[in-house]
Amino acid sequence: MFEFSITSRCPDTEARTGILLTPHGPLHTPAFMPVGTQATVKTLSPHELVEMGAECILANTYHLHLRPGSGIIGRLGGLHRFMGWDRAILTDSGGFQVFSLAHLRHIDDEGVRFRSHLDGSEQFFSPERVMRIQEELGADIIMAFDECAPYPCDMDYARKAMERTHQWAERCKEAHSRKDQALFGIVQGAVYPDLRQESAHFMAELGFDGYGIGGLSVGEPKTVMYHVLEETVRALPSDKPRYLMGVGSPEDLFEGIARGIDMFDCVLPTRVARNGALFTRRGRLNIRNARYADDPHPIEEGCTCYTCRHFSRAYLRHLIKADEVLGLRLATIHNLHFLLALVGEIRESIAAGTFSSLRSTFIEQYTPVDEAVRAANRAARAMAFVEGGVRRRSSSRGEAEGT
Amino acid sequence: MFEFSITSRCPDTEARTGILLTPHGPLHTPAFMPVGTQATVKTLSPHELVEMGAECILANTYHLHLRPGSGIIGRLGGLHRFMGWDRAILTDSGGFQVFSLAHLRHIDDEGVRFRSHLDGSEQFFSPERVMRIQEELGADIIMAFDECAPYPCDMDYARKAMERTHQWAERCKEAHSRKDQALFGIVQGAVYPDLRQESAHFMAELGFDGYGIGGLSVGEPKTVMYHVLEETVRALPSDKPRYLMGVGSPEDLFEGIARGIDMFDCVLPTRVARNGALFTRRGRLNIRNARYADDPHPIEEGCTCYTCRHFSRAYLRHLIKADEVLGLRLATIHNLHFLLALVGEIRESIAAGTFSSLRSTFIEQYTPVDEAVRAANRAARAMAFVEGGVRRRSSSRGEAEGT
Repeated sequence: MFEFSITSRCPDTEARTGILLTPHGPLHTPAFMPVGTQATVKTLSPHELVEMGAECILANTYHLHLRPGSGIIGRLGGLHRFMGWDRAILTDSGGFQVFSLAHLRHIDDEGVRFRSHLDGSEQFFSPERVMRIQEELGADIIMAFDECAPYPCDMDYARKAMERTHQWAERCKEAHSRKDQALFGIVQGAVYPDLRQESAHFMAELGFDGYGIGGLSVGEPKTVMYHVLEETVRALPSDKPRYLMGVGSPEDLFEGIARGIDMFDCVLPTRVARNGALFTRRGRLNIRNARYADDPHPIEEGCTCYTCRHFSRAYLRHLIKADEVLGLRLATIHNLHFLLALVGEIRESIAAGTFSSLRSTFIEQYTPVDEAVRAANRAARAMAFVEGGVRRRSSSRGEAEGT
Repeated sequence: MFEFSITSRCPDTEARTGILLTPHGPLHTPAFMPVGTQATVKTLSPHELVEMGAECILANTYHLHLRPGSGIIGRLGGLHRFMGWDRAILTDSGGFQVFSLAHLRHIDDEGVRFRSHLDGSEQFFSPERVMRIQEELGADIIMAFDECAPYPCDMDYARKAMERTHQWAERCKEAHSRKDQALFGIVQGAVYPDLRQESAHFMAELGFDGYGIGGLSVGEPKTVMYHVLEETVRALPSDKPRYLMGVGSPEDLFEGIARGIDMFDCVLPTRVARNGALFTRRGRLNIRNARYADDPHPIEEGCTCYTCRHFSRAYLRHLIKADEVLGLRLATIHNLHFLLALVGEIRESIAAGTFSSLRSTFIEQYTPVDEAVRAANRAARAMAFVEGGVRRRSSSRGEAEGT
């Protein structure tokens, strides 16, 4: 179970293709996993996810523990049966949500005591508790409980969070009992390459079925993330899957894969879809723009998704402007299909030895429309960093969907 | 085109089966038409509607005129192409919405000047204008512009509204030019049998492809509606389809069909679905109820809808409680499937001569859970009627979806 075979390697980058076998079918890597926070990938049916080729989805331990409760899901036969999805599922550790979403009460080496963001009820997450919850949920891949350091944070803080994550990883491994569930450790260490390498070595030594890389894309510049990624991957075993948590913009897929990442998840495609931002090879298109009011073309010519095969930009714009649910669905279908098709194309290019040329062609054409906004945000963050002070922030990293 | 053949008759009621041929396929009657106010049946894709056997849907002229505009839809090839639906469509006249939804400015024999409920822009609907808008939309069946009297209203008011509706019907017939569109007249006359008969005779004399019965289920007691229906149908030609506008609860389908009605539309199944009220043979089930939290059964055993084939009450409750769009979809699918399957069963029973026994079995089992609420409403209305005064009110009759 959970055999991971590497099927091809890129000659000039760290990119590779592989197959991870799970009790609910194979996961072809590199893989993008749509996020189904509350046991549903927002707006979609499981059959629509199958149609677009999703092999594994992510569900959030924190949310499902609070509602409807992992006990209920367990008694109903587990997440797969509960949500009618018979392919692979990965549940996260809940760590990120506890720190970013819950009303945090107290953290110590034992665990985290917090209040639910839904009803204020007092809750307690420890490594053992999080393992038990994830066993009740019954995903194919479960994650060790971790403490995710914010950005920016000083090295002393980052080290403490990393060391706690290491202790918790040991306890998670100890508490892990269901052999039909793969357990992934999570590497932390913020933006400090030395810490990241130390963390990767520690996790590799402990030995897991795969390795998550947490705490990235939380506000740091892209160049920093890419550098940290390189240093981290270097220290991880090459025969196990590497999962970059909470990252999944088109450009980050290419950059992550080139640095040896096998798995991604991100709320970005689904969240921006619901706001009318649609992926194309030339960047994001904002369907609310008046220029599309009578545009009879599909979102992107040649796209084979359900939306592009049947509907015009004009119709999609009308639905989104009129707040119609079908608009959210059709936009979500297109964006997820875009990313899943893109990683599929990337897998083929790695096998064919053409990954680097696909990467440069794509990046050249693709212009994230919000680049100016990002630049402004980066400048603001740099200022805050200079002024010092550790603060917590929310971003698309590891974030759950629409909470 | 628009040939209507009656294929069987019930021996002991006015119920009958028939086929209305349209340029976009046959409509088997009695028929229930799901409401797609803004060129989408809320939450559903056209393919899901086909899967549940819908042969004709209704779209709202008023809403589509305001957004995105009938001109845009016309230039894009009409409603069918715009929304990706290649079966029949009926558009209403906009009359009911102008009176119930718009900010009414002025009505005279020429038409109605009003302000859009969306942006306050000044608009003008006349019989000729409404015909032109419906021709741009390009539905298979279009409705004459009418003035819908409220409930309660005195006989003098009802007569004036009816007479204006008659004049407008003449002008609509005159303005009707697209021969690939059937034009239905609308019978008015409030709750007064004499007026209803007069209106039905007038419309029949004028001659239409079918006849709508408007202004019912706007607050009057059910017994009054059923009586008015009998008096109206008696005066209509038997060889043309009769369409009871804005009515479609399970019990009203039986009662309307027994009185000779061939077509229905109603927002009820879709609207209550989004609130978690689900149709079963034993009445409505409120899926938000805590008793369903760990219920592994489908909404209704034996139901063949997509929702019941794949998901439990527990999952559906979770989705609805968590405000997940998939919950709205699955609930809508079930309720529409329930009604479409029910009229299908009714058609079969009429052909088999067993309609009356199906009707009594169904009504005996079916307990609308909100019966107590209805009784209270009826009492309140009766009081208001006694106190006199014509007032406008909104109800599920002819109402558009989620405006």
